[in-house]
Amino acid sequence: MNLQEIHQVVILGSGNVATHLAIALKQAEVEILQIFSRKLEHAKMLAVKIGSAFTDDIKQINPAADLYILCVSDDALANLIKNFPIKNSLIVHTSGTISINIFDLTQANGGVFYPLQTFSKNKEIGFKNIPICIEAKNKLSKLRLSNLAHKISNNVHLISSEERKSLHVAAVFASNFTNYFYQIANEILKEKNLSLDLLKPLIIESASKIINCNPTDAQTGPAKRGDDKIISSHLEFLNSHPEYQELYKLISAHIKQNFSQI
Amino acid sequence: MNLQEIHQVVILGSGNVATHLAIALKQAEVEILQIFSRKLEHAKMLAVKIGSAFTDDIKQINPAADLYILCVSDDALANLIKNFPIKNSLIVHTSGTISINIFDLTQANGGVFYPLQTFSKNKEIGFKNIPICIEAKNKLSKLRLSNLAHKISNNVHLISSEERKSLHVAAVFASNFTNYFYQIANEILKEKNLSLDLLKPLIIESASKIINCNPTDAQTGPAKRGDDKIISSHLEFLNSHPEYQELYKLISAHIKQNFSQI
Repeated sequence: MNLQEIHQVVILGSGNVATHLAIALKQAEVEILQIFSRKLEHAKMLAVKIGSAFTDDIKQINPAADLYILCVSDDALANLIKNFPIKNSLIVHTSGTISINIFDLTQANGGVFYPLQTFSKNKEIGFKNIPICIEAKNKLSKLRLSNLAHKISNNVHLISSEERKSLHVAAVFASNFTNYFYQIANEILKEKNLSLDLLKPLIIESASKIINCNPTDAQTGPAKRGDDKIISSHLEFLNSHPEYQELYKLISAHIKQNFSQI
Repeated sequence: MNLQEIHQVVILGSGNVATHLAIALKQAEVEILQIFSRKLEHAKMLAVKIGSAFTDDIKQINPAADLYILCVSDDALANLIKNFPIKNSLIVHTSGTISINIFDLTQANGGVFYPLQTFSKNKEIGFKNIPICIEAKNKLSKLRLSNLAHKISNNVHLISSEERKSLHVAAVFASNFTNYFYQIANEILKEKNLSLDLLKPLIIESASKIINCNPTDAQTGPAKRGDDKIISSHLEFLNSHPEYQELYKLISAHIKQNFSQI
């Protein structure tokens, strides 16, 4: 048996990250021994999908796994680690923000296995391009986690807790906040009975642009051009939405300032 | 000769919209008679690309075209229309924000031909999916513009000036402001010597999601989950960037409020 290989894992959690990760690992022929969730129904639902055992009792967690993957919310993480019954095994969390040090009090071999992607319930996703950010306390654990990550992705990186936090904050801007702006766009259009479909080619093109183009070079729009007439006319248009108006004003000012400095 | 068809056009302007539109029209076998730009060098550069005549003298604009397409900045538009020497011909602007009424004083047959997309200098773009928003003063002009638009796109819509303004404001949020957030993400990563490449799969997935998913359903992240611990930790991380911190705080509050109401 090759100690550098991880053959059997237990997944703790049953949300989007747990589900997508479990499916990807199973497809890579990693054996999922067991799913744990505080809600038995949730554990069962995911376990049935991937053909594994399941439990809602932390004392019943299978001690034979090579790796325990904690896919629970950041809030639940500290408590779960504190009560985790198996010591000295390799155990990782999947959080963008929580430091590896969260394991220090009770787990000698804690690490991080953070897939940098937005996971939705009903949308399948290919793992091959997803960056997986690995962190571990020692060389062997790094190697083992890295080997596992390479089974599901071609985009594996050793990333420190501090770097990972940068990535997570940047990801909030680049994904969560941009999605919120799609919501604002949708709301503005709805009032005129226009469909968001009209903006979808623009949205896809705007995101695709930055694949080959620095986002500073990709910037377009009235604020970049310093077109105050349009900005005023848009702000007036947004009179009935003071919260959107505030954002429009603030971000346009930022963009104008950036480009006046270039 | 079919009066509903537009065979020959003159393009006024030489920027991104003029360039991409000229190329698309030429590929659709519409004849570009002439390129006009205030700067002769600019007019020439585009004219050479598509094999047309060019001028920087507004009095030399070819009077034989079926259509004149004004692809100039909103600021330059009123002046260009005022000085435009040919009356009673079909003439359109390509602006998202300016009303069709800008033509009223001097042009009886003004209209709008607005391609809803972000155009960059060095990035080719397929026109087939780009929504083209048409507006005109009479049925025949609507029909002629619509026929022309269908030659380059399968996504043609009759859109009023008021609706078009909604679309443009929504587009600023969905494209210009999201791109600015890619810039912020890039800046945050740069400080840790991390590459934006790490976020690209996330950025593409976040935009692709809304093709089949309402953006409200697609929302993820700490603010949506009401995860105040992460939000605080990210705000602290942004202490050295008060301008990003302000945006983070404001948008997180918006998202939290939206989702607490659902």
